[in-house]
Amino acid sequence: MRYCVVMEYDGSSYHGFQIQPNVITVQKVVEDCLKHIYQSKIKIVAASRTDAFVHAKHQVFHYDSETIIPVDRLPSIINKQLPADIRIKDIKEVSSNFHARYDVVQKEYRYIIAKHPVNVFNQRYVLFLDYEVDLSQIKEAMQHFVGEHDFRSFSKACDKEDTVRKIDSFELIENEDQIIFSIKGNGFLHNMVRIIVGTLLEVGIGNLSPNDVKSILGEKNRVYAPFIAQPNGLYLWNIIYKQDK
Amino acid sequence: MRYCVVMEYDGSSYHGFQIQPNVITVQKVVEDCLKHIYQSKIKIVAASRTDAFVHAKHQVFHYDSETIIPVDRLPSIINKQLPADIRIKDIKEVSSNFHARYDVVQKEYRYIIAKHPVNVFNQRYVLFLDYEVDLSQIKEAMQHFVGEHDFRSFSKACDKEDTVRKIDSFELIENEDQIIFSIKGNGFLHNMVRIIVGTLLEVGIGNLSPNDVKSILGEKNRVYAPFIAQPNGLYLWNIIYKQDK
Repeated sequence: MRYCVVMEYDGSSYHGFQIQPNVITVQKVVEDCLKHIYQSKIKIVAASRTDAFVHAKHQVFHYDSETIIPVDRLPSIINKQLPADIRIKDIKEVSSNFHARYDVVQKEYRYIIAKHPVNVFNQRYVLFLDYEVDLSQIKEAMQHFVGEHDFRSFSKACDKEDTVRKIDSFELIENEDQIIFSIKGNGFLHNMVRIIVGTLLEVGIGNLSPNDVKSILGEKNRVYAPFIAQPNGLYLWNIIYKQDK
Repeated sequence: MRYCVVMEYDGSSYHGFQIQPNVITVQKVVEDCLKHIYQSKIKIVAASRTDAFVHAKHQVFHYDSETIIPVDRLPSIINKQLPADIRIKDIKEVSSNFHARYDVVQKEYRYIIAKHPVNVFNQRYVLFLDYEVDLSQIKEAMQHFVGEHDFRSFSKACDKEDTVRKIDSFELIENEDQIIFSIKGNGFLHNMVRIIVGTLLEVGIGNLSPNDVKSILGEKNRVYAPFIAQPNGLYLWNIIYKQDK
């Protein structure tokens, strides 16, 4: 039986999603928890990796198990074992054809910037800029990312990797306390959102023009975008599957 | 030279303020940091201990050092060394008669209750009640705590300890998202605020009457108040000194 699980996590205490030696990761904690419940090794396959200290409002993974536990009871059973900064929000049985990574049609990431100085209670969750940015310049630059492009300049991708991705929309949401970047696309390269936001902040302070962003995209070389926004402000925000459409 | 320091901390990662063997505490982290800066052992004396996982919006401590570092540069020097969940807000030179604990005339604690279910991002900072409470009953019960009383029933105090304290005010602040208890007094016993809030929540659900609270206070025995609210929602909120009055 294959299960599809929706979860959220506060990434502050984790060295990212994916299992790595000698550090605590979300995948490790969840797999250890499932092993304890099912009394056998369970491998989880997630929609998206997240970097160290990046958060998830909506991450999805699937796993397989022969042992039948009623699906409506599973979230509370698992949540009882998990630390309070990782929560299962929903579990459903899916066909064995479902794949949490390959079936994704759209992912949304958000990057949250605080307008007011941070304190000890929110510094894990937002980026505070202690300088002014020109939002109209940033908005203009953002439009260059929309559509299908080779994002090699905006990633830590290795040479052989296919670096073409399609961005469906890129919006700026502003409220009293925050400026929020919302970017939706069919996939994102390693560090891509943080490099894009880091570059846009350079546009915001006037070190780059919106047109420079277009040129950097054309260069297909990370050397031209040596910027990266801190992980704290980044959230994996939503995942849409072909089955949802 | 004696220095008076105001700081805030997110208590989520600390086993309370006071140094204890084998666990990380706020005092230990701050003293290690000062030792690194001054290149000699520095002991800090705080206004108030806080329990494991309790937060501080405004904690005060003093320390002495012969080494002169310009006081206006000290906060940024110290903050650079401290983890991001402990921040120095202010430092001033004070007379060698000043004592961060003995000179306190009033402390304020706040306890924050969320009206909406918590998520992974705010569960460290508030208590969520998944049941209704009658605030008018709670407000009536709160009045019994105001004034000078023997608070033995509401503490983990040992037999010989003086358990008389004076509560100057006890208010309930309500907004769209939160119910906040604000209690001000000349001092608080170990666990006193959490036991008081735990008892008031019993009043809120009807297990105790406001008058029962008065009786429990009269008993001077913890057996009658076996309740305690979780630490997450508690904040050391303010400290007032005789010098401030």
